[in-house]
Amino acid sequence: MLTTYGESHGSQIGGILDGMPAGINIDLDLVQQALDRRRPGQSHLTTERNEEDKVTFHSGLFEGKTSGTPIAFSIPNKDQQSKDYGHLKDVYRPSHADFTYDAKYGHRDYRGGGRSSARETACRVVAGALAAQLLPQVSVKAWVSAVGPIALQVPTSELDLAHIDAHPTRCPHQETAEKMETYIEQCRADKDSTGGVITAVATGVPVGLGEPVFDKLQADLAKALMSINAVKGFEIGSGFAAAAMRGSAHNDAITEDFTTATNHAGGVVGGLSNGAPIEVRVAFKPVATIGKEQQTVDKDGNATILAAKGRHDPCVVPRAVPIVEAMIQLVLADHYLRNLKYTR
Amino acid sequence: MLTTYGESHGSQIGGILDGMPAGINIDLDLVQQALDRRRPGQSHLTTERNEEDKVTFHSGLFEGKTSGTPIAFSIPNKDQQSKDYGHLKDVYRPSHADFTYDAKYGHRDYRGGGRSSARETACRVVAGALAAQLLPQVSVKAWVSAVGPIALQVPTSELDLAHIDAHPTRCPHQETAEKMETYIEQCRADKDSTGGVITAVATGVPVGLGEPVFDKLQADLAKALMSINAVKGFEIGSGFAAAAMRGSAHNDAITEDFTTATNHAGGVVGGLSNGAPIEVRVAFKPVATIGKEQQTVDKDGNATILAAKGRHDPCVVPRAVPIVEAMIQLVLADHYLRNLKYTR
Amino acid sequence: MLTTYGESHGSQIGGILDGMPAGINIDLDLVQQALDRRRPGQSHLTTERNEEDKVTFHSGLFEGKTSGTPIAFSIPNKDQQSKDYGHLKDVYRPSHADFTYDAKYGHRDYRGGGRSSARETACRVVAGALAAQLLPQVSVKAWVSAVGPIALQVPTSELDLAHIDAHPTRCPHQETAEKMETYIEQCRADKDSTGGVITAVATGVPVGLGEPVFDKLQADLAKALMSINAVKGFEIGSGFAAAAMRGSAHNDAITEDFTTATNHAGGVVGGLSNGAPIEVRVAFKPVATIGKEQQTVDKDGNATILAAKGRHDPCVVPRAVPIVEAMIQLVLADHYLRNLKYTR
Amino acid sequence: MLTTYGESHGSQIGGILDGMPAGINIDLDLVQQALDRRRPGQSHLTTERNEEDKVTFHSGLFEGKTSGTPIAFSIPNKDQQSKDYGHLKDVYRPSHADFTYDAKYGHRDYRGGGRSSARETACRVVAGALAAQLLPQVSVKAWVSAVGPIALQVPTSELDLAHIDAHPTRCPHQETAEKMETYIEQCRADKDSTGGVITAVATGVPVGLGEPVFDKLQADLAKALMSINAVKGFEIGSGFAAAAMRGSAHNDAITEDFTTATNHAGGVVGGLSNGAPIEVRVAFKPVATIGKEQQTVDKDGNATILAAKGRHDPCVVPRAVPIVEAMIQLVLADHYLRNLKYTR
Repeated sequence: MLTTYGESHGSQIGGILDGMPAGINIDLDLVQQALDRRRPGQSHLTTERNEEDKVTFHSGLFEGKTSGTPIAFSIPNKDQQSKDYGHLKDVYRPSHADFTYDAKYGHRDYRGGGRSSARETACRVVAGALAAQLLPQVSVKAWVSAVGPIALQVPTSELDLAHIDAHPTRCPHQETAEKMETYIEQCRADKDSTGGVITAVATGVPVGLGEPVFDKLQADLAKALMSINAVKGFEIGSGFAAAAMRGSAHNDAITEDFTTATNHAGGVVGGLSNGAPIEVRVAFKPVATIGKEQQTVDKDGNATILAAKGRHDPCVVPRAVPIVEAMIQLVLADHYLRNLKYTR
Repeated sequence: MLTTYGESHGSQIGGILDGMPAGINIDLDLVQQALDRRRPGQSHLTTERNEEDKVTFHSGLFEGKTSGTPIAFSIPNKDQQSKDYGHLKDVYRPSHADFTYDAKYGHRDYRGGGRSSARETACRVVAGALAAQLLPQVSVKAWVSAVGPIALQVPTSELDLAHIDAHPTRCPHQETAEKMETYIEQCRADKDSTGGVITAVATGVPVGLGEPVFDKLQADLAKALMSINAVKGFEIGSGFAAAAMRGSAHNDAITEDFTTATNHAGGVVGGLSNGAPIEVRVAFKPVATIGKEQQTVDKDGNATILAAKGRHDPCVVPRAVPIVEAMIQLVLADHYLRNLKYTR
Repeated sequence: MLTTYGESHGSQIGGILDGMPAGINIDLDLVQQALDRRRPGQSHLTTERNEEDKVTFHSGLFEGKTSGTPIAFSIPNKDQQSKDYGHLKDVYRPSHADFTYDAKYGHRDYRGGGRSSARETACRVVAGALAAQLLPQVSVKAWVSAVGPIALQVPTSELDLAHIDAHPTRCPHQETAEKMETYIEQCRADKDSTGGVITAVATGVPVGLGEPVFDKLQADLAKALMSINAVKGFEIGSGFAAAAMRGSAHNDAITEDFTTATNHAGGVVGGLSNGAPIEVRVAFKPVATIGKEQQTVDKDGNATILAAKGRHDPCVVPRAVPIVEAMIQLVLADHYLRNLKYTR
Repeated sequence: MLTTYGESHGSQIGGILDGMPAGINIDLDLVQQALDRRRPGQSHLTTERNEEDKVTFHSGLFEGKTSGTPIAFSIPNKDQQSKDYGHLKDVYRPSHADFTYDAKYGHRDYRGGGRSSARETACRVVAGALAAQLLPQVSVKAWVSAVGPIALQVPTSELDLAHIDAHPTRCPHQETAEKMETYIEQCRADKDSTGGVITAVATGVPVGLGEPVFDKLQADLAKALMSINAVKGFEIGSGFAAAAMRGSAHNDAITEDFTTATNHAGGVVGGLSNGAPIEVRVAFKPVATIGKEQQTVDKDGNATILAAKGRHDPCVVPRAVPIVEAMIQLVLADHYLRNLKYTR
C-alpha cells in the first residue's frame, strides 16, 4: 500500500510503501532511473526547468534488501520559491483544481497547485519502481500512441519496444514520433497545449491475479490509471471498439496450451488475469496551463483574463509514460500479494 | 460499503450495505422497481426466462427508515436446477471465467458461471437504489448510446431522458432505438451477440466530492463501472476525444456564478466534483455465450467444439442500464459520506 | 473478513465471511455444534427460552469445500414477537445501550436491544467455527475461570481442558465449578446478576503471526475480545501482574530449541507469535438486565423505576465461552492469511 | 489514519497523518512539547542519553492551519552509530523481538531492535498531539498509577492532575511518587527493571463516538493501547473488578440530565461513548533489557549468557505517559470523524 504526501511548493514530497515482503533485493539505481524519466527538463519538448529529482530512502531497506517494514522515501522540492504565485492566490484557473479545492477545503495552498500538482506523481514512480522489483518476471512497458491528432497506426506486435526512449516523444515508431514532435512544437508556438494517449502492455503476469467481483483486475487498473492527473479515459483489450463487435469475432478461442488465439480480453477474463499480455490505453487531456488568454473569474466571482507566464509543457504525455508504468506495477504487486492465499 | 455474496445456482444471492446514516426514509418499492429493470425476461430482446427477482430485507430498517446499522438483503435463485450444467463441468468456454477461476481457485462451482455470473449484479442494483435515497437531490440517469455499429448521434442536451424506458433498448431516441432493435434481432437470428455503450449523467452532485490523489472521483467511478461484467472501457467528459484536442479548446471557462461554460471535464476537476453534470460512458463487449460453434478446450487441454444451447441474450446492454446507475449511486453516496468532514 | 447484520427482533441475523481460500474442507456440523454451545436454554443456569439456533449457508461452499468466494449464512430469529417491548420504547435501561444509541442514531429499534443485543454474537460463533477449519493444527480452548468472587486457583497446566463442557458453568475444575453454580443460583434468587472471567489458550499457532506496529497480534486479539458485549478488560500472558514484576523474573529465557522456559509473554513477543501457547483472559461485567428495581429516566428525562420482567441469565459467562473462542479463531485466521507473504 | 516508518538506527523515523479536515489551527509547539515528554534523558530516572527529538513537518500545513491533505513529519535519529550492535547480530535477547522477527522476516535489521524498537512510538506522540487539536474540547490526561508493587491508592477524583509532571515518575500524588522513585532507583541498583500501570482519563468526549459491533470504542482503545510496546493488559471502567461484582452494584443509574450516578462503564456503553469520562488502565511489563546476566541462545541455538551493557531505563512507564495519551487522542479523533455522518 502506498501513502504519499506533499505539496508542489512545500519543502519536499514523499511517501511510504508498506507491505513489501522481506528479503527482496532492491536496486536503488533502477528507482532513480525511473524517476529521471519523469523529471522536467529532460528534453527540449518539456519545460526548461532542469530540476533534478533525487530520491532518498529512510527505512525498510537493510543491506540491499527489504526488511518487511515500511519503506519511506522523500524527494526535495528544489525550486519552491513562492513569490511567483501571489497573482494566482485569488484567481480560479480554468480546468485546474483551484475552485474545487477551495470549495472542498476552504483553506488552500495556492502555490503551484499545492497538493493538486502533478508533482505528486513522482512519488508514484518511486513506489512503482520498488513494486516492480517484487515481480522481476513481469515486464511493464508503456509508450505514447497518440499526440493530438497524430495517432500511431502500427499494431503493438510490430513495434520495437526497446525504442521507446529513443525519441523524446516516447513513441517507439520513428516516423510517427517525428510527426508528434512537430505537432507539439506547433502547439508551443501557438501558446497552446495538446492531449495524447499512452498504451501499456504487461507481460509475464501470473494467471489468476484479481478478485472476482468489485476488485476485478481491470477495475483496479482503471482506478489506478484514472487517478493520474489529466487522464479522461481507460480501455483494456478491445476497449470501446468491443461495443461495435459481435461475440463470434470478439471471443478469444482457447487453445490446447490454455493460451488464447486472440487477445480481445486484454489479458483479463472474469476479473482475473489469464496469462496473456495485459494491454491498456489511457487518454490524457491537453495541459490546462496555456499561454493563450482565457476568460475566468476570481474567488469573488469577478470576471478576469488569465494567460500563463513563463514556459510550460505543451504536452505532458511523454513524461507520463513512467507514471503509467508505475501505477500498473503497483496494482500488479498488490494483487500478487493478495493472491498468495490461493497459491498452492 | 457493499459486500455481496452468492453464486448463480446457489439458493440465493444477497448482500450487506453498511454505512448508511440513520433516519433516512427508504421507499422499498423504488428498490424493487430498479431490480425489475434488470431482470431477465422483461422484453422480447432479452432471454425468455421470466424470472421474478424479489428482494427481501432482513435488517437495518425500522419503521420505514434506516436505523444506522447494516442493511442485509437477499434474492432467491428461483431457477437453480443444476442438471443442465454437467456438460460444462470440464469445458472452458471462450471469454468466460471458467479457465481463470479454475487456475485461481482450484475448486470451482461450474453451474451457470457460479460467482462469475452476472447474476451477482442484481445485488448492486439493490444497494444502488438504497444509496440513491441518501441523496435525493442527485439524479443519475443512464441509457444505451450504442449497440454494435448503431451509435446515438444526438447530443445529450437534446435527449428527453424521460423516454429511456419507452423502448426496450433503453435508447431514448426513438429512431435510433428502432435501428438498435433491428440489429439485436439480426444478431439473435445469426446465433451471435453484440456489444454496446451506455452513457450516464449525474446531476445535482454537490461540489467537492472526491479525494485529491488516489481516490479521485473519476478513479472511483472508473473502478466501480469497470467492475461490471463485460465492461472494457470507461470515459469521463471528453474522454478519449480529449487526446486529440488542444488546451484552448478543451479548457472549461469559469463563469461569474462559478459554473463552467463548457463541460469537457465531465463534472470532475482535480479529482473533485465541480457541480457540473458528471457524464461518463462505458463500453460493453458482446455477450460471450453464443449459439454459434466455437473452438475451445476442456480442462485437460483437449480441443473441443462448443455451441450454447437454449436462448441467451444477444445484447445485455439494455439490462445493464440500472447496473450502471447503481454503481454511480454507490460511488456518489460513499464520497458524500467521506466528504462530510470537510463540510462546514 | 467478517461482516454481520441483524437486530434482536428482526426476521433473522447473519453475516458474510469473505477471504477464505478455496479448497478448504468444511464440516458444517462443527459449526452448528459451536452455535449450540452459545444458544440460550442449554442448561438450568441460562434463560428458559429454548431457542434453537439453526444456521443456514447460502454461498461460498461447493461439494463440501470452500470455493474461495464469500460465505454467507443466516440464523432465523424464532421468537421475535415485539409486543413485549413497547414499555421499553421510551425508557433508558441503566448500563444498556438505549441512551447512547438514541443519542447517536436518533432512530432506534428498541425491541430487545435491536442491534446492541448480544444475539449478534451468534454470527461470530459461526464465522469463528469456519475460520478454525482453515487452521486445523491450531487448538483454541476457552473456559470460565471466575464467576463473581469465585475464582479458579488451579494453574492452567494442571487443568483437564477436556472437561470444560462437563459442567454447565464451563469451568473445567469440578469443585470450583460447583461453587460457581451455587453462586449463580444465589444471584438468580436475589433477582441479581454476576460478572466473571474467561481464560483462553491457543496452541499450535505458527511462529510469526502479527504485524510489527499497530496490528500487533495482542492488539488485534484485544480489539476482537473487547468488542464482545459486556467485556471490560483484557490481559495477555502475565497481564496486569506484569506491572508488579521485575525484568529478571519476567523475562522468558530462550532455550536451545527456540522455545521459552517460561511464558510470561503469553505467546506473543514484539507483536508476533513466538510459538508458545497464546494465553489471554477477558473480564465480563455482570448482566445489566436484572429483576431488582432500578432508578432510571425516560427519553424526556423523567425519573422512573425499572425492573426486568420474565427470566434472564444471571450470568452469561458460560455462554460466552464459544464467543471468545470464535473471536480468537478469527484473529488467528486473519493473521495467518496476512502472514503468507512472508512465508518461504 | 496514521502510517509510520523507521528503524531505531536508520537516518530518521516519521509518519503521515491522513484525514485531518482542513482549516484546523495547529500549534506546533504543543506537538514538540508532547514529544519532549517522551524523549530519553529528561530526568535522572531515565537513560542518560540526552537525545533531543526534534520533529519537522513537510506537508499538509499552510499558514498555520491544516489544508486537508496528508501531514508528513520526520524526526532524525541523532545517535544511530551501529558499531555497538554487532555483538547482538546473532543473539536472541530474551523477551525481545529478535527471534520472532527473524522467524517472520528472515532478514532483520538487528541494530537497536530495528523496527521493533520503542523509538517508533515517538511518531505516535507527534500524531496524537496533532489529532488532539482537532478536538480541543476533549482533555486526555494519563499518569503513572503503579510502579512495581507501589500502587497509587487515591481515587481519581481526589487527584490533582495538574501535578502529573511535577515529579519525574509522573505520578500526581507526591507521597506515592516518592516511593515509586525509590523503587525505581533500587531496581537500577540491582541491574534490574520494573513494570507499572498507567491510568488515563478523557473528558469532554462527545456522546455517540464508537461503532456498534466490531469497532466499539473500547475495542479500538484496547487495540491502540495494546499496540504500545510492553503493554500486557487493558481495562476500561470497572475492568477486571467488574467480574466480581453484581449487576445491582455495577449498573450505572441514569439521572435526569442523562448523566450517570456512577461510572463503572468507564464512559462507554454499548460500544458508544455516553458523555461520562472515559477511564482506562494499561499494564506495562518490566523492561526486557537488564544488566543482570540472562540465559539465552544465538541464532544457531547455542546457549549463551547475555548482560546488557551501558545504562538502560529501569522503568519506562513515566516516559510512556505521553504515548498513552497520544493513542487515545488518535482513537477519539478517528471516531469523531467517523461519527460525523450521524450528526444532525
